[in-house]
Amino acid sequence: MIIDCHGHYTTAPKQLATFRQQQMAGLKDKSLRPKSLDLGIADAEIRASLEGAQLKFQRERGTDVTIFSPRAAGMEHHVGDEETGALWARVCNDLIARVCGLYPKNFIGVCQLPQVPGVSPKNCVAELERCVKELGFVGCNLNPDPSGGYWKDPPLTDKYWYPIYEKMVELDMPAMVHVSSSCNPAFHATGAHYINGDTTAFMQFITADLFKDFPTLKFIIPHGGGAVPYHWGRYRGLAQDLKRPPLAEHLMKNVFFDTCVYHYPGIELLTKVISIDNILFASEMVGAVKGIDPETGHHFDDTKRYIDQLAALSTENRTKLFEGNARRVYGRLDAVLKQRGLN
Amino acid sequence: MIIDCHGHYTTAPKQLATFRQQQMAGLKDKSLRPKSLDLGIADAEIRASLEGAQLKFQRERGTDVTIFSPRAAGMEHHVGDEETGALWARVCNDLIARVCGLYPKNFIGVCQLPQVPGVSPKNCVAELERCVKELGFVGCNLNPDPSGGYWKDPPLTDKYWYPIYEKMVELDMPAMVHVSSSCNPAFHATGAHYINGDTTAFMQFITADLFKDFPTLKFIIPHGGGAVPYHWGRYRGLAQDLKRPPLAEHLMKNVFFDTCVYHYPGIELLTKVISIDNILFASEMVGAVKGIDPETGHHFDDTKRYIDQLAALSTENRTKLFEGNARRVYGRLDAVLKQRGLN
Repeated sequence: MIIDCHGHYTTAPKQLATFRQQQMAGLKDKSLRPKSLDLGIADAEIRASLEGAQLKFQRERGTDVTIFSPRAAGMEHHVGDEETGALWARVCNDLIARVCGLYPKNFIGVCQLPQVPGVSPKNCVAELERCVKELGFVGCNLNPDPSGGYWKDPPLTDKYWYPIYEKMVELDMPAMVHVSSSCNPAFHATGAHYINGDTTAFMQFITADLFKDFPTLKFIIPHGGGAVPYHWGRYRGLAQDLKRPPLAEHLMKNVFFDTCVYHYPGIELLTKVISIDNILFASEMVGAVKGIDPETGHHFDDTKRYIDQLAALSTENRTKLFEGNARRVYGRLDAVLKQRGLN
Repeated sequence: MIIDCHGHYTTAPKQLATFRQQQMAGLKDKSLRPKSLDLGIADAEIRASLEGAQLKFQRERGTDVTIFSPRAAGMEHHVGDEETGALWARVCNDLIARVCGLYPKNFIGVCQLPQVPGVSPKNCVAELERCVKELGFVGCNLNPDPSGGYWKDPPLTDKYWYPIYEKMVELDMPAMVHVSSSCNPAFHATGAHYINGDTTAFMQFITADLFKDFPTLKFIIPHGGGAVPYHWGRYRGLAQDLKRPPLAEHLMKNVFFDTCVYHYPGIELLTKVISIDNILFASEMVGAVKGIDPETGHHFDDTKRYIDQLAALSTENRTKLFEGNARRVYGRLDAVLKQRGLN
């Protein structure tokens, strides 16, 4: 089985955007708020939104199941207030649950959290619990910068974040560290803010002892780990200069990278430098880069192709990367797959 | 000749730090300001600060000339005011000029600019001119985020920056895009802020047409280009999605990467993915990572070793990478080398 651990519902029916527009209008004039949490989306519309996109690519590329979450750029934790954020996360997550209900063999849910800059992530615990217990989700996306490019919240290693970590550990839910859109004109979202978020989180983990406090807490750093594998010598060297333990021991039981790197040499470096046990297959489709690479004639984000070209990857390691590691990192995944008749 | 285009005076005699402490004290109590711009550093102290560090490594590693600038983390554009910033840049640059005077065959100067968050970089023009005309420098370090991790100034492609670009072009001076220390607790300086600064700048260049306005303007993006070469497919794909010209045509006559990547697989990827014409040898020594890699028994930042291991690098490309590209990008370098009897 080939499990893609990083897919977003970037093609949701337009009613979702309308709901959000009403929320934004409602911030100024309460009478304009959405009247209902029912978006009025028919099953056929959901099917249509996926058939020509995510499902088509699954079939064409030969991948099986996508761990699927709301559009990352759409989370917009920096916009609105606690109330709009809570309802927005709820409707986005409910829509993912409908996708998983319609296509139980193709999609497994991961949730958006109702984070708000400067508000304790305690406010996310109830939604996380609902998404596991009522919707059958297996993980969450955690935004290390809810301020959207101004980085106003404490580092991920700060006790500020512990309430959500305690619940993640209790529920056996990993988090993908994933920023949302950027309201800082310095940062292009998918070209700078996303990658910087990944790099920043990894360095935060190096400098602290978070995993002494939470030995079973797990994070996936997407987009191939940001800049980290390319600068692996720098990070090993910095850890050493800072008198931290070797990275394998200090972080790599808890931190994993996905394969959203859109050219063969990048994937080659990732799999050469980082232990295969720490790499989870992913494509981010349909996502950041939508086009076809004129150098190869294939989609940039068809990351399976790059991995298939790795002559040095043994069958055992291939299975880990495509399936085994995801089953290990997402502690609830095995049970959900079994429940759906996927073994 | 082997030219290292990225070295900082991280080992300056302690009088430099004392001057800075007096500046900081003087912000609260004017009577505590430094009494003089003469730091009272003897030539012998400068020699001692370099002999066991930068000069020792040049000899041991077989490199010849270092393009040398004040300590990047020490620039601290986010600290103090316009007056302290101007004097701080001046004394730091004067000290680099003394280093170059004492070791004309080993060091060529690059200057710190007196940038201040929110203040037009017009204020840097006079110091840039002084450093070229009086001190014989060949380039400058330009901080894309003088706020030190809060990214409050406009993107590098904004007309805000044009006054300094006009002077750079007039003087034939490239800039290394280099942030300073971070006052944002989210960002470790050398592990996150530096690399993010590099990635961010490159993406800013993609989204605009800066090099239509300044066809001869040149930037070196240090630390191997941040995350960019590892994610080269992503950047090519984003440029295409954004209807930008191919990167080779859009940016790569103006943007160059250094080789400050501290392990062999990273250097291998860099030289495989990026045209050799766009890569300048550098080690950042004595800098971000000081230790010895237990996996190789050599310093992490001995980047020449990694390049020497590249079997695929032709003699012609090797010469470009170690020397020719630097002579091309730093337009004034040839003349300065000749003046010093180095050809």
